Amino acid sequence: MSHLNKEKIAERMKSLQAYICTALEKVDGVSLFISDPWDREQGGGGITRIIQNGGVIEKGGVAFSTVHGEVTETMQKQMGIEGNSFFATGVSIVLHPHSPHVPIIHMNVRYFELDNGTFWFGGGIDLTPHYVIESQAKVFHQGLKNICDYYNIDFYPQFKNWADDYFYIPHRNETRGVGGIFFDHLTAEKAGLTKDEIFNFCIELGENFPILYKQQVELGKNIPITEHEIQWRNLRRGRYVEFNLVNDRGTKFGLVSNGRTESILMSLPANASWEYNYQAPNNSREKQTLLSLKKGINRLG
Amino acid sequence: MSHLNKEKIAERMKSLQAYICTALEKVDGVSLFISDPWDREQGGGGITRIIQNGGVIEKGGVAFSTVHGEVTETMQKQMGIEGNSFFATGVSIVLHPHSPHVPIIHMNVRYFELDNGTFWFGGGIDLTPHYVIESQAKVFHQGLKNICDYYNIDFYPQFKNWADDYFYIPHRNETRGVGGIFFDHLTAEKAGLTKDEIFNFCIELGENFPILYKQQVELGKNIPITEHEIQWRNLRRGRYVEFNLVNDRGTKFGLVSNGRTESILMSLPANASWEYNYQAPNNSREKQTLLSLKKGINRLG
Repeated sequence: MSHLNKEKIAERMKSLQAYICTALEKVDGVSLFISDPWDREQGGGGITRIIQNGGVIEKGGVAFSTVHGEVTETMQKQMGIEGNSFFATGVSIVLHPHSPHVPIIHMNVRYFELDNGTFWFGGGIDLTPHYVIESQAKVFHQGLKNICDYYNIDFYPQFKNWADDYFYIPHRNETRGVGGIFFDHLTAEKAGLTKDEIFNFCIELGENFPILYKQQVELGKNIPITEHEIQWRNLRRGRYVEFNLVNDRGTKFGLVSNGRTESILMSLPANASWEYNYQAPNNSREKQTLLSLKKGINRLG
Repeated sequence: MSHLNKEKIAERMKSLQAYICTALEKVDGVSLFISDPWDREQGGGGITRIIQNGGVIEKGGVAFSTVHGEVTETMQKQMGIEGNSFFATGVSIVLHPHSPHVPIIHMNVRYFELDNGTFWFGGGIDLTPHYVIESQAKVFHQGLKNICDYYNIDFYPQFKNWADDYFYIPHRNETRGVGGIFFDHLTAEKAGLTKDEIFNFCIELGENFPILYKQQVELGKNIPITEHEIQWRNLRRGRYVEFNLVNDRGTKFGLVSNGRTESILMSLPANASWEYNYQAPNNSREKQTLLSLKKGINRLG
């Protein structure tokens, strides 16, 4: 029997948040995270940490939260769960860099438990370059595969496909970016691992997050920036907003379940643009990027 | 028996679009609308007309469309309708001005018909000032009331409340703006009018739209603009994006029913901003505006 109870998991999620923020401050080099703790009336609370106007990051957040309460009808319907009461804790990250040559990045790890004893883990990391460069996407995917393979050789291929499906914008027929990994409802049985092992997998993903992002920052941060590239970055941010508000199940669930709006929408960029029916010119880097935003591309190739 | 069949309604909706565009070009004074016709694979099509970088309007669209086909399961569920095939036509408008002192405005009039003979009208006009000034909101609401009263004395109070409920952002606990009117599933029986009369009401709303907007433009367009006001405008545009992508039933239905994405999302502004947990200072005009974004305010007072 594992000693890993929900209190310990929440405590380690909170430590993970602190660890990631400290590491990201080093990657950024200029700004520090502010800390915004909050309580949830119906049970639980969290700490939302925000970094702004940094050396690399224009707007980013690393959120920790713990939520518990009764299983509502909305949860039963939307999540298909049974039970009277639930407990959930996790860490969520979205970082929007200044430079169009540094990707937007997202990570989430979460633990969910019902009063009937069932529990599962979920999570994901995905990368959204404004300009897709396959060699850089490969560095990211190889890093994820290395972590996955240590726990279960099936994780990377399975979770990579899941990410392709999840981080997808149907009304644009585009993936959000070059994907990554996504998993949900991961039980000990499904994972072929103990509860402790799945949790270690989640923590290791989190601890590797600043390393994975630093690699991407280093690859792009010194590339000169043109006004044209800034405009393209803003259009891509527009797509990010569309995905988060229209398609992201976590955001939608948070908003309809009376979650803390500012913490949920910390994922939105400082600004975003829309242009009617923008068409990237043939053979442009913008067109190349659009052609790379497809499901099923082998990013290790 | 009315001679007003669906072909005639669609034809007059198309003429209404042309009329409104010509009138808005005069209000704008600089830019002209471009015209983007499109076909719908499953039946129907439309003309999306876009104005950009104008004297008043930064980005705006006036869309006409005619859609017909089989009643899908999604439509049955989301719209609660019965029947085998449907026909729908209408005009939709959203205008985003440059100036923070000129409001964003939206209008929609639509006709829906089933093969079983039932039909109804829907529509709405609402105003979203970046800075709420009650005397200007009053001009707008008085204009709407005058049109409504001519057809049915109950329309304005009923449709004004409906707009308060519809143009509402629950996760922000804010109305989108100062409201206006909204109505849906308006049958001859419910309206106490003939089909021709309800249609005339819709057309009259449309024909008055440029006049109503011109009043708002005149009241704001010569007020000097500060950088601070531009930032606030962009944050308010962020809220507009949130409403349209998270809450607007028309947008959501369009996106999930495989509508033409660019025509649906022409409602989004050229740019929008988000700032974590922005708090307007007490007694500021921004705070005053937030306090005015509530349901149930008498805008004629």
